Amino acid sequence: MNERDRHREHSAPRERPDAKQRRTAELRVFGLNACLAVFARRPQAIRKIYLTQQRLPALRDVLAWCARERIGYRMVEAADLEKLTRSDHHEGVCFEVLREAPLSLASFLKAQRGDKPSWLVLLDGVGNPHNFGAVLRLAAHFGADAVLLPPGSSLALSGAACRVAEGGAEQVPLVSLDDLGGAIAALVRANYRVVATVVREGEDLYAAPLPRRAVFVFGAEGAGLSPALRTAAQRRVRIPGTGAVESLNIATAVAVVAAEFWRQYHPGAAR
Amino acid sequence: MNERDRHREHSAPRERPDAKQRRTAELRVFGLNACLAVFARRPQAIRKIYLTQQRLPALRDVLAWCARERIGYRMVEAADLEKLTRSDHHEGVCFEVLREAPLSLASFLKAQRGDKPSWLVLLDGVGNPHNFGAVLRLAAHFGADAVLLPPGSSLALSGAACRVAEGGAEQVPLVSLDDLGGAIAALVRANYRVVATVVREGEDLYAAPLPRRAVFVFGAEGAGLSPALRTAAQRRVRIPGTGAVESLNIATAVAVVAAEFWRQYHPGAAR
Repeated sequence: MNERDRHREHSAPRERPDAKQRRTAELRVFGLNACLAVFARRPQAIRKIYLTQQRLPALRDVLAWCARERIGYRMVEAADLEKLTRSDHHEGVCFEVLREAPLSLASFLKAQRGDKPSWLVLLDGVGNPHNFGAVLRLAAHFGADAVLLPPGSSLALSGAACRVAEGGAEQVPLVSLDDLGGAIAALVRANYRVVATVVREGEDLYAAPLPRRAVFVFGAEGAGLSPALRTAAQRRVRIPGTGAVESLNIATAVAVVAAEFWRQYHPGAAR
Repeated sequence: MNERDRHREHSAPRERPDAKQRRTAELRVFGLNACLAVFARRPQAIRKIYLTQQRLPALRDVLAWCARERIGYRMVEAADLEKLTRSDHHEGVCFEVLREAPLSLASFLKAQRGDKPSWLVLLDGVGNPHNFGAVLRLAAHFGADAVLLPPGSSLALSGAACRVAEGGAEQVPLVSLDDLGGAIAALVRANYRVVATVVREGEDLYAAPLPRRAVFVFGAEGAGLSPALRTAAQRRVRIPGTGAVESLNIATAVAVVAAEFWRQYHPGAAR
């Protein structure tokens, strides 16, 4: 990544993921939809809740559950939440929750049944928690079966990513790849095809049907894909357009590709 | 817009558009692609240039032009640019440029030739400059003919919106509507159909072809469309998905709809 790309990759977030927090077992999730999604799927992971007075109505059921289960909650001021979450986008609520470890690829593939249409997304060189959160939201909306993180990825769920994902972080499993070559071979054995999204070259996204089991690979804006992944890709596609701007940002690129997969394969969607 | 939606609408940007600057004739554009796009299309609008030492190589042609045309430029520190742009995402360059006034709908429609496929985007209740900039980038990429601003819209080009648009703000004209009912009647006379994007109800985006001349209307996330526009729409579409998250953000929703329009109508795109 050159200087400029690094700048861009880091340009959106002010909510810096706390490197220390990442390594700990607990995660501070904030934002109303993000917190409600944790409560809906794994309430037992909640360790503690902080909220403002104004958030009470939206969290009445959650607090009743906390009282029954003896989970602590505390009414705080917005300023306290800003400190706790290191963000002013907390929306009046923060849950301390136990982190889920990412799956291994082997266990993910083992749990998959059959040979149904399926898409996965692999983020290469993406480090910005806002972009990560936006991709999780899209992955949840368009039904990705997993988000794959390449070896050495700096991505890990942070509170900021969860907030931007609007609950999507609870819906789509994260899978950590520890050996790229081996992972791609295993995915191909499971009938996936690796489709890299590129800015130049590559065939028009709409020129031919997408593989019905696809791993869509996206690189960081500007930096593009790492050579290893470019080479590994069985197909390279480009989102067509006027050329008036250099490229799209990663979340909008994922949106376009994921929507097209949905259009082609989702039962009930028009062909 | 309720309290929560307002929060969200304002949650991304820290680069607040300076209300005072909006009303003045000059605009501080920053970000490398945004500035280069101004230079490419209307160099005569540039009043003054500020840049850091490191940005010299990328701006050599621009500065040579400035010297010839006697336009001032000044080498500054990054900290000075942060003050000038009220942002730390200046990417080492800021142009003071003359603002272009938005077009009236009448002059926009008059300049349109023939009855070719065309899409416009109307942003209803969107005030966040980051969302606005992201939409401009998409409008430029997928060839929108204009971005329409409803009466009373708080949107105006700001430096932050231009930066996020990555040059797209120079590519797509802004059109100010001063009377919604009259504007929609005029658009319909020009063979446009108003297509509202909604979160609930509405038909599947992929269920039927899009009109070949379409005004796509998007409301602010959460708040949705104003009743006037909901009623005015000839069609309501919904971006299909799993329902695992409540909705998409506005930029990704625009991306999906604009890409589908491109797929259906752009010459050379597969059907």
